Amino acid sequence: MSLTQNLYTSISSPSSAFLAHSNFNSRAKNVSLPAKRFGICKCVSAATQEAQTAYKTTVSRNANMTKLQAGYLFPEISRRRAAHLLKYPDAQVISLGIGDTTEPIPEVITSAMEMRSRALSTLEGYSGYGAEQGEKALRAAIASTFYRNLGIEEDDIFVSDGAKCDLSRLQVVFGANVTIAVQDPSYPVYVDSGVIMGQTGLFQKDDQKFGGIEYMKCTPENGFFPDLSSVSRTDIIFFCSPNNPTGAAATREQLTQLVKFAKDNGSIIVYDSAYAMYSSEGLPHTIFEIPGAKEVAIETSSFSKYAGFTGVRLGWTAVPKQLLFSDGFPVAKDFNRIVCTCFNGASNIAQAGGLACLSPEGLKAMHEVIGFYKENTDIIVETFNSLGFNVYGGKNAPYVWVHFPGRSSWDVFSEILEKTHVVTTPGSGFGPAGEGFIRVSAFGHRSNVLEACKRFKQLYK
Amino acid sequence: MSLTQNLYTSISSPSSAFLAHSNFNSRAKNVSLPAKRFGICKCVSAATQEAQTAYKTTVSRNANMTKLQAGYLFPEISRRRAAHLLKYPDAQVISLGIGDTTEPIPEVITSAMEMRSRALSTLEGYSGYGAEQGEKALRAAIASTFYRNLGIEEDDIFVSDGAKCDLSRLQVVFGANVTIAVQDPSYPVYVDSGVIMGQTGLFQKDDQKFGGIEYMKCTPENGFFPDLSSVSRTDIIFFCSPNNPTGAAATREQLTQLVKFAKDNGSIIVYDSAYAMYSSEGLPHTIFEIPGAKEVAIETSSFSKYAGFTGVRLGWTAVPKQLLFSDGFPVAKDFNRIVCTCFNGASNIAQAGGLACLSPEGLKAMHEVIGFYKENTDIIVETFNSLGFNVYGGKNAPYVWVHFPGRSSWDVFSEILEKTHVVTTPGSGFGPAGEGFIRVSAFGHRSNVLEACKRFKQLYK
Repeated sequence: MSLTQNLYTSISSPSSAFLAHSNFNSRAKNVSLPAKRFGICKCVSAATQEAQTAYKTTVSRNANMTKLQAGYLFPEISRRRAAHLLKYPDAQVISLGIGDTTEPIPEVITSAMEMRSRALSTLEGYSGYGAEQGEKALRAAIASTFYRNLGIEEDDIFVSDGAKCDLSRLQVVFGANVTIAVQDPSYPVYVDSGVIMGQTGLFQKDDQKFGGIEYMKCTPENGFFPDLSSVSRTDIIFFCSPNNPTGAAATREQLTQLVKFAKDNGSIIVYDSAYAMYSSEGLPHTIFEIPGAKEVAIETSSFSKYAGFTGVRLGWTAVPKQLLFSDGFPVAKDFNRIVCTCFNGASNIAQAGGLACLSPEGLKAMHEVIGFYKENTDIIVETFNSLGFNVYGGKNAPYVWVHFPGRSSWDVFSEILEKTHVVTTPGSGFGPAGEGFIRVSAFGHRSNVLEACKRFKQLYK
Repeated sequence: MSLTQNLYTSISSPSSAFLAHSNFNSRAKNVSLPAKRFGICKCVSAATQEAQTAYKTTVSRNANMTKLQAGYLFPEISRRRAAHLLKYPDAQVISLGIGDTTEPIPEVITSAMEMRSRALSTLEGYSGYGAEQGEKALRAAIASTFYRNLGIEEDDIFVSDGAKCDLSRLQVVFGANVTIAVQDPSYPVYVDSGVIMGQTGLFQKDDQKFGGIEYMKCTPENGFFPDLSSVSRTDIIFFCSPNNPTGAAATREQLTQLVKFAKDNGSIIVYDSAYAMYSSEGLPHTIFEIPGAKEVAIETSSFSKYAGFTGVRLGWTAVPKQLLFSDGFPVAKDFNRIVCTCFNGASNIAQAGGLACLSPEGLKAMHEVIGFYKENTDIIVETFNSLGFNVYGGKNAPYVWVHFPGRSSWDVFSEILEKTHVVTTPGSGFGPAGEGFIRVSAFGHRSNVLEACKRFKQLYK
C-alpha cells in the first residue's frame, strides 16, 4: 500500500471538495464562500471522486454517523446567510436566527473574569486543574440560587462548558441501548446526539423522523404539551421548558403529569431549563419543584442566555443522587465517571464569571439583560399579531413561534431572507411538527429588532 | 409506582453511601473526607442496600460503564492523598503526582485574557457563539506555528477545550465497532474512552488488560518503542510522544516505522503531542513531519503544559483532509459534525489567551516556563540516578519514570507517600507494563521539587 512522494504532494493541495467542506463547517460570521450550489450532495460526490485516486485507510466509517441528515441545523442556516450575502453584498442582514446573544456582558461579571485572568499570572492566584465537576463555591452557589429548599445539593451539581456539551455527555452515559423521546419540535441536539450514539434507526424520508425515536407532538392544538396518553414508553425523555423553539412553558400541572408519566414508566427525564429565567412568576423554574422529580429527572442548564455567555461557555447539570438505574446504581456516579474521563472542567475564568453572575449584583444584572430581550420579544410578538398571524411563545421565552399554515418552513425562511434580509429559523429544522412555522429569536440589538419588524410589516402588510 | 411524600422526604437527606460518593468524585485540593475504609466496594454495597428501599427507574445501566475499573486513576490518587492528610494533618505534602502545572501564566498571555474579558462588556468587543471549530485567527496561528510547511492548514485545525476532551470526541466519531491499540503504559483516557464507547471486552484480572485492546508494550528492553512486528492490526492506534508516563520520545526513524505500519494496515494513528515542546532539537515535534502521515494520522495537542492552561482549558486537534475512511469519506467531516453537535467551541477568553501564546512574546514566555520545568526534571533525574535507580524519561518530557524492579507500583507509591509525604503516580495505573515503575512529575515549585528530592534521598539512601 505504499504511495509515491508525488501523491503526497498532489493530495496536500486543497481540493474543490474541501473548499466546499470548509464552508460546510461554520456558523461564524467569518463564513465566506458557501452557496447553495456547493450543497451537501455536491460535496460528497466530489469527495468520492477524489477518493478513487487517493489513499484510503481500511477503517470503516461509523454507521451511526452515516444516518445523520445533512448538517447540523444552524451551520446550514449560516451557509444560507453567507450565500445571501454573496448575492446581495450590500444588504443590511439582520440575524434573528441562531439565537445568539448580542448584548454586552454586565461589567460586574466581566470584571470578575478579568480579575481571575490577572490572578493566574501570580503565584498566589494561579490554579491548575480544578475539580472536573466544577469549583466548590460555584457548585454551592448554583445549588442555593436555583434549587434552594428543593433538596438539590452542591454535590448534585456538575459545572460544565454548556448544556449542549452536557447533553452529549449524558448520551454517552446512557449508551446505545436506550430508547429516547423528544418533543416535536425540539432543539436538534437531542435527536442528533441520539443518532450518533446509535439509539435510533434510519431517517425516514416520508415522515421526516428517525426510526426508534418517540416524537411527542407539541402544536397549538395541544397547547404545546404532548398528549402523554398517546406517547409510548421510552427510557429517556428529553423535555425543554420554556421550550426552544416554540417558546411554550409548561405549567406546574403539566410538569406534574410529566413526572408521573416518567415514574409510571420508569423513565428518566432530561430536563433542559436553559431558558428558565425567562419564564413568568408562578411557573415552575426547575423540574425539581415537582415532588418526586429527583427520582426521575436530570436537569441541564446554562449561563448562555442569562449572562450572554454563549461564547464564554458555562453551564451545569444537576443529577440528583436519588436517581437510580434499574439495578439501583446511581446515575450520578456514571455521569461523574464520564465527566472525569471525557472532560476536564469548565475554564476557571468562566467559572469566576459564573460565580459573579450569582452574586446579588450579578443576579440583578442578569435580570436586566433578560428584561431587555423580553422587551424585544414583545415587539416581535406585537408585530406578527398586528399582521394577523397566529403567534405563539414569546411570553416566557426569547423565541417567537409564528404560524404560516400550509407553507413550507424553508420556503418562508427563504422568502423572509430574500425580501427582508432577515435571518430566521425554519420550524421544520426542529422536527416535522415544526413544519409551517418559523422561529424568530429575540436576541438582537433593539435597533435591529425594530428594523426587522419594520421590514416584516412591509413584507406581510 | 406512586410513592408517598414521606419517602421523598426521607430520600432527600444525604445517605452515607453518598457521602462516600461525593468523596469519590474529586481530584481537587478541596477533597475533604475520603479514606481507604470508604473505598469503592463499601460505596457500591451501601448504595445497593439503599436501593432496596428506594425508587428505581427501569432504565438499564449502560453495560460499557460497568466494565470500567474503579475510578479514573487521578481521582484515586487524590483520594489517597486526602486520606494521608487525615492521618497526618500536619504533613507538608508535596504533589509530584497528577502532572498539574504550578507556575503562573506569563503576563503577556493573561493580559490578553483580561482584555478579552473586559471587551465582552462593551458593544464593540462583545461576541457570542464563535465557530465551533475555533476562531479563524487562532486556527491560522496554530497551523503556522506548529505545522509550517507541513501541509496542515487552518481548516484542518479544530480548537478545543483540551486534548482529553477531544480524545473522547474522536472516540465518538469512531464508534463502537473499531479496534484500538495503545502503548502500554499509556495515559488512561485512551483505554477508558474505548471501554466507554464499547470498543472492548471485559477487564481481565489475570493480565490486567481489557479484552479486545492491543497493548503495545513499551519498556526499557525495547527502548519504550513497541516491537511493531508483534503488534496486531487495529483500526485505531493511540500513540503519545513524548510519552506520558514514560517520558520517552520517539525518533524520526521510529515514527517513520509507525506511519508505515499504519499505512500497511490501513489504520488511523491518533497522535497525542501534548508534550512536544518539551522534546529536544532534532526530534520530530509533530507526526506530520513524517511523510505520508497526513493520510493516516490525527494529532491532538494542548496549551496545558506549555502555558499552564490546565485550568484555562485550551487545546486543538489537527485532522488532515487527506485522512479517509475505507469508503473514501473524510474523517475530518465526521469530526466536524461531532464538534458542531456535541461541542460549542472553547471559551472565547481562553482562545484570546491561546492567540497570545503564539505571538513572538508568548512563544518566548512559554519556552521559559517549559525551560523551568525541564530544570526540575534534571533535578529529579539526578536524584534518582544518584540513588542508583534506573531512571527513564525526563530528557524530552516533564515526567521521570523510575524503575523499582520486582516491586508493586502501588506499594512504592504508598511507601513514598507514607515516608516522605510526596505524592507520585504508580506506573501500573497506566497499564500492566507500568508495574514496577513510578512516574514523578516535574510540575512543581522549585522549592518543592528540591524538598521532595531531599526526602527521596533520605528514604532511599
